[in-house]
Amino acid sequence: MHRLGIDVGGTKVLGVRVDVDGDGAPTVVDHLRTPTPGPEGIIDVLAEVVDRLDPSGSAPVGVGVPGLVDRDGVLCFAPNLGGAVGLEVEALLRARTGRPVDVDNDATCAAWGERQVGAGRGHDDMMLLTLGTGIGGGLVVDGRLLRGAHGFAGELGHVVIEPDGADCPCGQRGCWERYASGGGLERMAIERARRGDLDGVVARAGDPDAVRSEQVVDAARHGDADAVDLLDEVGRWLGRGLASMVNIVDPDVILIGGGLASAGDLVLASARAVLDTATLGAALRPTIPVELAALGDRAGAIGAALLVR
Amino acid sequence: MHRLGIDVGGTKVLGVRVDVDGDGAPTVVDHLRTPTPGPEGIIDVLAEVVDRLDPSGSAPVGVGVPGLVDRDGVLCFAPNLGGAVGLEVEALLRARTGRPVDVDNDATCAAWGERQVGAGRGHDDMMLLTLGTGIGGGLVVDGRLLRGAHGFAGELGHVVIEPDGADCPCGQRGCWERYASGGGLERMAIERARRGDLDGVVARAGDPDAVRSEQVVDAARHGDADAVDLLDEVGRWLGRGLASMVNIVDPDVILIGGGLASAGDLVLASARAVLDTATLGAALRPTIPVELAALGDRAGAIGAALLVR
Repeated sequence: MHRLGIDVGGTKVLGVRVDVDGDGAPTVVDHLRTPTPGPEGIIDVLAEVVDRLDPSGSAPVGVGVPGLVDRDGVLCFAPNLGGAVGLEVEALLRARTGRPVDVDNDATCAAWGERQVGAGRGHDDMMLLTLGTGIGGGLVVDGRLLRGAHGFAGELGHVVIEPDGADCPCGQRGCWERYASGGGLERMAIERARRGDLDGVVARAGDPDAVRSEQVVDAARHGDADAVDLLDEVGRWLGRGLASMVNIVDPDVILIGGGLASAGDLVLASARAVLDTATLGAALRPTIPVELAALGDRAGAIGAALLVR
Repeated sequence: MHRLGIDVGGTKVLGVRVDVDGDGAPTVVDHLRTPTPGPEGIIDVLAEVVDRLDPSGSAPVGVGVPGLVDRDGVLCFAPNLGGAVGLEVEALLRARTGRPVDVDNDATCAAWGERQVGAGRGHDDMMLLTLGTGIGGGLVVDGRLLRGAHGFAGELGHVVIEPDGADCPCGQRGCWERYASGGGLERMAIERARRGDLDGVVARAGDPDAVRSEQVVDAARHGDADAVDLLDEVGRWLGRGLASMVNIVDPDVILIGGGLASAGDLVLASARAVLDTATLGAALRPTIPVELAALGDRAGAIGAALLVR
């Protein structure tokens, strides 16, 4: 039997067809990518992806979308998807395709993908963070996804970790994702570059305001001490937030995905060092492993395929 | 059928005998209080409470203790209980009494009590905060307690909300409970009193360092503007932390218990005002009710009785 999973990102849509037959792990047997349209074109593109991946079939469809998704699959709020509000993705796609459809938050889907066939296998209490422009979060508790009363759980990026801190597009100040994501790295890099504290990176970028996170990572890999220091700082912010998360939900593993995970070797050492000392009773409780996620940018689509009921 | 529940507090132990027969709600049919001994005397006192509440019976026993309790009922870390470390409460009391025994964190027990017979009835995704010297936390997710991989979930008081903030006995700085508990109120009151910003309360207390939280609450009830302002501030810190919690776990109700709940009318208005605007997409999601818990200081003992398997 096949299932379809579709992950709607800010710039591209990834669809997969997953074979769930047999005794082995589910296998991705086909995939495709297409650009993300504006909010008014989302249902058309989703229906097209379904047709192309399973032209004559009736495979059920799971969809992950960025933003607040309620338990009926309505996208209530999506700042990273053209500001869509109240888009009934699940009902509209079900009507359009005649197939079973389930829609959930993209990071929630990714957490389920990692739990079932990725780095989270065997872990019943798991936390996934995707570190990209922001922070996406997904939580597994006692082997089940933590969805919350309205479906909105896991918005870890907007936990405030610095009350007078950097402005966030969400309207608050000091959100975790302004410090411990790829976007947070870039924000802090430009701030340091303007102060003259990141000259090696500015030399690559040409201008302080043109500094991008990839250039910081690249400079650090080539031994630039200022860049290494900044990535350490991002790691410390990551670790501080993780310690609070561990105090709240007590996972047995923390998985890190998203674009910044590719710089994991430069960020995770300082994150782990902070985490290992900052939880309540740290010396008397087990160390919580912080590991890289395994499914890369397919985690959301695979998880969506495995979630559909 | 009867069950026993015992709540071990920092200064007193409360035991209850609960009748769970019949179709109605469980009923407390007897209770007793006794002082909390040092860590080495805990098991003796628990056994004595069991004997006195159920001298010739074999009722199962649930126990709530403050601190980190693992899934085997070992009290791993208890800063508010004489610094007990590694105390095998469940195994020792089971051996001593020959009865079924379950041991869990005190606030986790209180959350279950409120969920089953208190203000949380009918709520499958619930958060309880007990605001006393610190903040105790208990979380119900999909109708089940969130215990965490090791049993340590719900330590909400040590979520860091102000990274350069007040020292906490736990070793960190800026823990939520240093701002939004009875103890936090007292800390901030003494700080303001020393600065000369709380003269009406100091006049009652005699000395800035002698200011107690009850005096601040009493002064506020008599119209002291500085005291009202301080309780508003405590409420705002409470609301900021609650907004982060809602972003993480998305409960359908938040219950407030503990000593500071008696000043709920002076604290919760500002807490709700902050919460209602500070969650992600606040204007597009339901308001989360913040209500007073119903069972008072019996919540932990009742919940422990209802938890025992």
